[in-house]
Amino acid sequence: MLSNGLYIMTSRSADRVGAATVTWVSQASFRPPLIMAALRRDGSLFGCLRESGVAALHVLGRAQQDVARRFFAPTEAADGLLNGEPVAPGLTAAPILGCAPAYVECRVRQLIDAPGDHAVVLLEVIEATCRERVAPLTIAESPWEYGG
Amino acid sequence: MLSNGLYIMTSRSADRVGAATVTWVSQASFRPPLIMAALRRDGSLFGCLRESGVAALHVLGRAQQDVARRFFAPTEAADGLLNGEPVAPGLTAAPILGCAPAYVECRVRQLIDAPGDHAVVLLEVIEATCRERVAPLTIAESPWEYGG
Repeated sequence: MLSNGLYIMTSRSADRVGAATVTWVSQASFRPPLIMAALRRDGSLFGCLRESGVAALHVLGRAQQDVARRFFAPTEAADGLLNGEPVAPGLTAAPILGCAPAYVECRVRQLIDAPGDHAVVLLEVIEATCRERVAPLTIAESPWEYGG
Repeated sequence: MLSNGLYIMTSRSADRVGAATVTWVSQASFRPPLIMAALRRDGSLFGCLRESGVAALHVLGRAQQDVARRFFAPTEAADGLLNGEPVAPGLTAAPILGCAPAYVECRVRQLIDAPGDHAVVLLEVIEATCRERVAPLTIAESPWEYGG
């Protein structure tokens, strides 16, 4: 009964790209603008984020369940596509999804040595882009209870 | 466009009670069951939680905006009422709201020295109680954009 959104987070380290659907995300500060996220330790996303110190968090609209589903699968990057979705370069090394109505680009501020089965990371938002104001996709409206 | 729930968090340290409406909350681990929360550093809630190491997080139903509103105000505890709402003892020192459809009782696992204007805390859930399955109140359905 906790309420969460469904997001796509991406990162890149050298020529490796990491991406995943994530749900355990919340703002954590106004100044500086921080986001806290709990991420699977074994995924490509966390591996790239830890190495490169950058990430992008993409909001999805309510009609984009299919996009969320694609990023439950292992990361596949080729020919300007990430898990089949067009991506473009952003401010940092993290690729930006063309289909996302809004996204924030972040630098890792703190990797927390948390006792749980997920890594907890504090990200500082260095740029925020809103292409379209939409009702965001949430876990409550999805068929899932956990998004990775 | 980030999605968050609206919750009431309570704590107690000796004879002081702290409580607040909070929104920056998410699960952070399955094993052990952890919740991460970003809390105002200057509030009674964080003061009590830091001293006592315990807290209770209450889920509200969609019809309980009035309860959320009451806990934006400073904490007032008297005669079994907390900001006008009946409370009862729980497993820990943190008081339990009679009106909450569900709640978790927690011990502080880690206070994170975060660089932002909110304190970040990792709470381990030691007991979870669901009195009634309801559609939880979220910030998106409320008149507010931030819940403290």
